[in-house]
Amino acid sequence: MKTSTAIYPGSFDPVTNGHLDLIERGAKMFDRLIVAVLHNAEKQPLFTVPERLEMLREVTRAWPSVEIDVFEGLLVDYAQKRQASVILRGIRAISDYEYELQMALMNRKLQPKLETVFMMPAETYSYLSARLVREIAMFNGPLQGLVPPLIEARLRAKNAKK
Amino acid sequence: MKTSTAIYPGSFDPVTNGHLDLIERGAKMFDRLIVAVLHNAEKQPLFTVPERLEMLREVTRAWPSVEIDVFEGLLVDYAQKRQASVILRGIRAISDYEYELQMALMNRKLQPKLETVFMMPAETYSYLSARLVREIAMFNGPLQGLVPPLIEARLRAKNAKK
Amino acid sequence: MKTSTAIYPGSFDPVTNGHLDLIERGAKMFDRLIVAVLHNAEKQPLFTVPERLEMLREVTRAWPSVEIDVFEGLLVDYAQKRQASVILRGIRAISDYEYELQMALMNRKLQPKLETVFMMPAETYSYLSARLVREIAMFNGPLQGLVPPLIEARLRAKNAKK
Amino acid sequence: MKTSTAIYPGSFDPVTNGHLDLIERGAKMFDRLIVAVLHNAEKQPLFTVPERLEMLREVTRAWPSVEIDVFEGLLVDYAQKRQASVILRGIRAISDYEYELQMALMNRKLQPKLETVFMMPAETYSYLSARLVREIAMFNGPLQGLVPPLIEARLRAKNAKK
Amino acid sequence: MKTSTAIYPGSFDPVTNGHLDLIERGAKMFDRLIVAVLHNAEKQPLFTVPERLEMLREVTRAWPSVEIDVFEGLLVDYAQKRQASVILRGIRAISDYEYELQMALMNRKLQPKLETVFMMPAETYSYLSARLVREIAMFNGPLQGLVPPLIEARLRAKNAKK
Amino acid sequence: MKTSTAIYPGSFDPVTNGHLDLIERGAKMFDRLIVAVLHNAEKQPLFTVPERLEMLREVTRAWPSVEIDVFEGLLVDYAQKRQASVILRGIRAISDYEYELQMALMNRKLQPKLETVFMMPAETYSYLSARLVREIAMFNGPLQGLVPPLIEARLRAKNAKK
Repeated sequence: MKTSTAIYPGSFDPVTNGHLDLIERGAKMFDRLIVAVLHNAEKQPLFTVPERLEMLREVTRAWPSVEIDVFEGLLVDYAQKRQASVILRGIRAISDYEYELQMALMNRKLQPKLETVFMMPAETYSYLSARLVREIAMFNGPLQGLVPPLIEARLRAKNAKK
Repeated sequence: MKTSTAIYPGSFDPVTNGHLDLIERGAKMFDRLIVAVLHNAEKQPLFTVPERLEMLREVTRAWPSVEIDVFEGLLVDYAQKRQASVILRGIRAISDYEYELQMALMNRKLQPKLETVFMMPAETYSYLSARLVREIAMFNGPLQGLVPPLIEARLRAKNAKK
Repeated sequence: MKTSTAIYPGSFDPVTNGHLDLIERGAKMFDRLIVAVLHNAEKQPLFTVPERLEMLREVTRAWPSVEIDVFEGLLVDYAQKRQASVILRGIRAISDYEYELQMALMNRKLQPKLETVFMMPAETYSYLSARLVREIAMFNGPLQGLVPPLIEARLRAKNAKK
Repeated sequence: MKTSTAIYPGSFDPVTNGHLDLIERGAKMFDRLIVAVLHNAEKQPLFTVPERLEMLREVTRAWPSVEIDVFEGLLVDYAQKRQASVILRGIRAISDYEYELQMALMNRKLQPKLETVFMMPAETYSYLSARLVREIAMFNGPLQGLVPPLIEARLRAKNAKK
Repeated sequence: MKTSTAIYPGSFDPVTNGHLDLIERGAKMFDRLIVAVLHNAEKQPLFTVPERLEMLREVTRAWPSVEIDVFEGLLVDYAQKRQASVILRGIRAISDYEYELQMALMNRKLQPKLETVFMMPAETYSYLSARLVREIAMFNGPLQGLVPPLIEARLRAKNAKK
Repeated sequence: MKTSTAIYPGSFDPVTNGHLDLIERGAKMFDRLIVAVLHNAEKQPLFTVPERLEMLREVTRAWPSVEIDVFEGLLVDYAQKRQASVILRGIRAISDYEYELQMALMNRKLQPKLETVFMMPAETYSYLSARLVREIAMFNGPLQGLVPPLIEARLRAKNAKK
């Protein structure tokens, strides 16, 4: 792709090893990869947006072409503002596949020049989701292999406070 | 079908071009088509039931055999009251297919004489849902081609009030 | 539906109780239902087309609005010739769902006025297919409940000859 | 299986005939079957945990190897505490199949010695869910064949109180 | 399960690491596990039935409760002859899931006392199939990690002969 | 992607508008796109490999970065020979989705540096396949909108010869 900017949108509450696997693949593929945290006023997240941004910055430091950002509103508007031509999405073997296609078709309808590109994380992460990570953390279950050590520490700290 | 009445149930919050495509197909197929708005006391809709009924009446005026109504409770009870023998449901290429079959089997268990019939909207609307429409409207995204002009105006007015 | 003719196409090699369940539902729904056996020169069927037509006629005798016929070529051309406006297809809970939608969309592309309508056979038949019936018959397994007695007799006779 | 204990986890709010069908199959398969009610502090159930335990005990009396229990936290921790080596899950023809596999893979990651085993309830119950049962009960619809008479009585009593 | 015999049926043309993973899980779960090679007169296999039986015996030597056998005809008849009460099948995250359920429901119809039990191979093998192994072998691709060394040698020998 | 070569493999028997839609999207995305016709000695195609190559060259003339080629054997070996780092595959809303993921995981196992990237053709082509095109052509059905005029002419010529 010729000087390409891709956006990898998500909640990242918190970022998991599955997300990082995809970020690494995307960083190899595109000139610039913007990991964009969706600011959803209605949902009650475990980590605040600033916390999520800070954690993402820490764990993606190794990839200079990766930028962490936050957005609100329609993804297509944010993509235009950032002059990105590609949306990157992970599809897991076990997945919300149909929902992904629905979003991709709708985004194409709203902005035909914006392409959605799907990549697969390693199959080791096919079962992994942020929701499961939060649930395991809540009951002090083992998080090794599911999130980076830094994120594990933050999850433990979050639970200790409750 | 011999003097047939079909019910097309849904939330219609708001009615989209995908719903209208299916209403048009159903109007050709059945002698009478009742578009029935489910009054769900628990959910928080964007439009009130009277608003949804009024909008549906406006955009289905062209089809004399289409009637707009509201129901509460079990669909099978409402169908019996209205002497309808058919439930009409849309299945999208990208769809909640399994949920639809589950509902249809359950309704058949409750009332064996009531048939559920599935039709497909045009593939242009395969990604369209009322939820996506509400989301795009909330962020002032383009609604052309997704809902009729009248519904677009109501969505804009609704947002202006907030 | 106002004076409606529907076509229920298939191989019917042989007709099963699942097919008959759907034929009965279709006969209630449409003024005329044409059960149309596809003459596929390339496939090697167990029963010849005349055998299949004769068996279908026997087991659908109870429904006067059901007609048995054979067709070759494109379904949309046959539908036009027979002045049918509806294609009837069964969708099983466990099913070739995506293939069915693909065919329906393609047929709509070829002939926009021809609607495909999907109905569900009783869930008892969700696992039933002509292929499984042929396989069970080949090994003299029990066929009761899977096909009508007449079809069972023909399957037994067919195997005896081999 | 050599002196085996299996856990059948769920919400059972309330227990349905589909659950009972699976419990009966599991009771034949394993030396001991623990039906474990998940105590989820966040959800608002229709029946309290003590009510659900009592109902489960009543309707599973016929099977001496079935034990009713409650658990909180991670299923893998509970399985270890109870020295169970198997998780039993039902898969319906129409189902939350992918979610089940995701949970099973995650549980295997957390505890590799714990196997998840899937069995199918009778196809008659493929459409049945506790949520549908609650909904039908709420509108005084027919519950026969969906839950045992005792559970039907409790559902009626619950609604009368509202 | 109380003195249980399970059958794990398949083509095993050839046995892969995915099959072996499941055989190991089954061997832990059941008192006796019969790996049963289907003798299908119509298909053209890569390895003959005696070759497949011999390879299976070699690679399952470590598990004394595993028996290798061949069968022809209906699986339910073979199960009855062998006094097995359980059919073991693997479900892969990426899978022929619906076909498996269809077979299981049909087998239950033919023999209600025979239960089909589904287990998952390790997710590493979710993409693995005997067909892919044959294809890779045909073009001298790398087979390490996909089949045991013995099977790799047999595949290489088979190709050398051609 | 930084000076990237992608391979879009397939049978292209014949190339359809759905393929062309994806080729156009891929040509925008990658520096070089190799459309690679699989030479499968076992299958009986409608068009020979040289015919398919010639047709592909004609209909992709407008895109200078698109190259047409043929390959035999494993895709990963061909990708290495051509120094391609990406496999491009289309996923249709109605699709062979699971098979695609299976192939992608297997290819990653065989060559971890080779990424498979999925893009969506326009939803208008979601039902389109080369097999359906061949079938429609065989019965002289309308091909407009399904294949370019040149391919339609070749299909008509092919049928005339038979």
